[in-house]
Amino acid sequence: MAESPPSHPRTRRPWRRRQVLAWAAAGMGALALGGLGRHWRRQSLAEVRVPTQDAAMDLNLPYDPIALLRDFNYGTLRHEATGPVREFEVVADSVTLPLNSAISFVSWNLNRRVPGPTLRAQAGERVRIIFHNQDGHSHSLHFHGTHPAAMDGIDPVRHGKTFIYEFDAEPFGVHPYHCHIEPVTRHIGKGLYGLLIVDPPQARPSADEMVLVMAGYDINDDQRNELYAFNGIPNIYRDHPIAIYQHQRVRLYLLNMIEFDPVASFHIHANLFQVYPTGRTLEPSQETDVITLGTAERHILEFAYAYPGCYMFHPHQDVMAANGCIGYFDVLKA
Amino acid sequence: MAESPPSHPRTRRPWRRRQVLAWAAAGMGALALGGLGRHWRRQSLAEVRVPTQDAAMDLNLPYDPIALLRDFNYGTLRHEATGPVREFEVVADSVTLPLNSAISFVSWNLNRRVPGPTLRAQAGERVRIIFHNQDGHSHSLHFHGTHPAAMDGIDPVRHGKTFIYEFDAEPFGVHPYHCHIEPVTRHIGKGLYGLLIVDPPQARPSADEMVLVMAGYDINDDQRNELYAFNGIPNIYRDHPIAIYQHQRVRLYLLNMIEFDPVASFHIHANLFQVYPTGRTLEPSQETDVITLGTAERHILEFAYAYPGCYMFHPHQDVMAANGCIGYFDVLKA
Amino acid sequence: MAESPPSHPRTRRPWRRRQVLAWAAAGMGALALGGLGRHWRRQSLAEVRVPTQDAAMDLNLPYDPIALLRDFNYGTLRHEATGPVREFEVVADSVTLPLNSAISFVSWNLNRRVPGPTLRAQAGERVRIIFHNQDGHSHSLHFHGTHPAAMDGIDPVRHGKTFIYEFDAEPFGVHPYHCHIEPVTRHIGKGLYGLLIVDPPQARPSADEMVLVMAGYDINDDQRNELYAFNGIPNIYRDHPIAIYQHQRVRLYLLNMIEFDPVASFHIHANLFQVYPTGRTLEPSQETDVITLGTAERHILEFAYAYPGCYMFHPHQDVMAANGCIGYFDVLKA
Repeated sequence: MAESPPSHPRTRRPWRRRQVLAWAAAGMGALALGGLGRHWRRQSLAEVRVPTQDAAMDLNLPYDPIALLRDFNYGTLRHEATGPVREFEVVADSVTLPLNSAISFVSWNLNRRVPGPTLRAQAGERVRIIFHNQDGHSHSLHFHGTHPAAMDGIDPVRHGKTFIYEFDAEPFGVHPYHCHIEPVTRHIGKGLYGLLIVDPPQARPSADEMVLVMAGYDINDDQRNELYAFNGIPNIYRDHPIAIYQHQRVRLYLLNMIEFDPVASFHIHANLFQVYPTGRTLEPSQETDVITLGTAERHILEFAYAYPGCYMFHPHQDVMAANGCIGYFDVLKA
Repeated sequence: MAESPPSHPRTRRPWRRRQVLAWAAAGMGALALGGLGRHWRRQSLAEVRVPTQDAAMDLNLPYDPIALLRDFNYGTLRHEATGPVREFEVVADSVTLPLNSAISFVSWNLNRRVPGPTLRAQAGERVRIIFHNQDGHSHSLHFHGTHPAAMDGIDPVRHGKTFIYEFDAEPFGVHPYHCHIEPVTRHIGKGLYGLLIVDPPQARPSADEMVLVMAGYDINDDQRNELYAFNGIPNIYRDHPIAIYQHQRVRLYLLNMIEFDPVASFHIHANLFQVYPTGRTLEPSQETDVITLGTAERHILEFAYAYPGCYMFHPHQDVMAANGCIGYFDVLKA
Repeated sequence: MAESPPSHPRTRRPWRRRQVLAWAAAGMGALALGGLGRHWRRQSLAEVRVPTQDAAMDLNLPYDPIALLRDFNYGTLRHEATGPVREFEVVADSVTLPLNSAISFVSWNLNRRVPGPTLRAQAGERVRIIFHNQDGHSHSLHFHGTHPAAMDGIDPVRHGKTFIYEFDAEPFGVHPYHCHIEPVTRHIGKGLYGLLIVDPPQARPSADEMVLVMAGYDINDDQRNELYAFNGIPNIYRDHPIAIYQHQRVRLYLLNMIEFDPVASFHIHANLFQVYPTGRTLEPSQETDVITLGTAERHILEFAYAYPGCYMFHPHQDVMAANGCIGYFDVLKA
């Protein structure tokens, strides 16, 4: 049976908004905020062309890493007496992942995929994440971003139990979530993480949006990673390059969830990307082609390719690339 | 007997100031400087409420890590013939630290605490640090920031000797100091480091200011760290959460002095912080909740909590958190 | 015999320029671009004084690390029917480097130096790099920056073969190049890397410009580095400090090409530097004295020393400094 969340203020947190506005006015022009809630729109296929591409199912994977790239979970918008709530369901369980033709790995995961579902809401919306733990171990969902202490997800939810996390999705940006049960390195290394994208009040420009999460696998429990991956499966986008269109802006929601290695960088070949740190700005802060992220750091990166062809992406810690954290963009003629 | 410092210019370094002004005018608006020396004020208790809190002395520590947080050492202002000088005394010695109930560690430290005293001056002030080495090994104080070569602190000060470091405190920002005697990894790992905070000409806004320094302990001399800590003692702020008030701005002077690990990040739960890199700006450059720092990197972070409750902070390299580099903010109702 | 490059568009990529201009207009003021091609000038000795200094040849090195610092290779400008082309020649070979008095290391290198030649062009220029592989192993040149897929340098060029890389040098900034043959960690660790500096349309201010590349040497093939170096030779600038003039701006093109260690930082003593990330801006983004770079990250750093004397520089991962990645600036009275 679902445990009800502890009571806490249902206000839209005017203090917080005042602070952000004062801060924006004080000099960070990139953070000028329009009226909350009026401008959100989801992108339509009329604006962005997404290449059709076969699923990457040759390894009998429990999910399709090609579909996962652009699979945004908007949940269900419920109109309740206290106001609208965007509601998501997340289930923890154990699923065997074929990391390659020789190694099967018992992942602990969310909604039968690694990373878990890419939850998506608009800044200021009330969100409710109904978390069912069907796995044999205790788990939790700790969200980055802002929320009251009771919603922080550091307390275990035992096997067979449900806990409801509910808070206002703020501020806009890219917020990881992950299990916070000890040992955290193990619970993260097994696959219990994902992204909550909180969209700004005014939509970002149209783009081919996708999610890449970097992971490390400690296969032999020596507190080092032997394999690495984008979106759960080593080399999956090397063997199944990600099709994108020439000249079309790609918006990458990039997260590093590699434990044991202190950082991982991200590099794209033959191009530079613009960086929106933590997704907290509407204008880029820098342009480069290698960026370093500590565990749980994440950014929005934007780029477009001028020429058709196949282009690598990988961390520039080349040991990680050589052991599975590598892929290609297959740039199709526009 | 004190060795006198080598002679060097006593001017206020007009060249340097011109360079900084030109640079500020050229585009870094965050660095607009007012008239030097007119506006400095120390915060009064009337402006900032600091919760009363018991000392964290249960381990028979030689210092109280709760008091250390907000213990700023302004030294003594001496009016001399050549102008005013802010004078500090720093003593190196060996003191046994109980890192936990099982491990006692012979620290090399400054003023019987790890980190050493948080020295504090205003930009442009002449500072004099009288350094007495009462430890059995040779040590030195190497300051980050600007100073002549003779004041760089790379030459050993032998047991029983005193050396006087004297220079103009510039530019405003957060400047670590540490022993620079070989092997530097060992002298830093033993505890010989601290912060010199140089305040900008115009005071930063009122805040509950505190210092956190991340440290690593190589207990078995294998050039890896087995324990980690904030402000010297593993898990001290996990067992004694830092009391702060809801809605009140916290200004954190954060330094990473962990050797052997290439970087450490800093993460706060349920909130984001604004980053003032190296303390060299008056406006934040970004907002996030995880930031990566190489050894000797340091920033000012600012945040306030909207809801009462207990919130973790730790590096997101979760091995470090699991081995002592972890704490809580206990947010009290305003 | 030289293989001719695959055909690809010879246009000046108007799309790319439009994107950059739009982006600059949208908020990154630092990137205001003047008319392409009109303002480039190389610095004259009348503007910048470079101290005369003896070569650092005591170890019978195949190149002089002092001369290498300021050795910019502008190639040959050829006026062809399709327009001007700046042409460079780069030769891969094996050369034994005396890393210290005890260790000789068989480097794989470019133009008999580590790092390889510092190629230099203006933004928008057509560049042609004629790459001769005279080494016994297959190698390639993978350039960072923008170019078509066929010019990406991930395909091997076998022993005795020549390949011609040709593309438009864009955008302005600091772009590493390196061999991209598997295992990349080994080909980079052996010395196959260098910098392509693409100057902005309007020249940066006059400065004493130099290149520093951080390297790691895995002497015993254990996938860890035992020695480190600036510009190929451990401790070379410790034993032969780099002479610069007091008050004169130094512009450092800094690259981290250390494999196996996830990052390296760079620290200068007694001073701060201004950072131009990836060389992609004309105004600095921050000022500090320690900056962390992942493998293949690079920046322009600028600083000037106010006082004569000798000042260390090194990564603040002090293990790297203790094992060869260390040097001095010898600041001469202006």
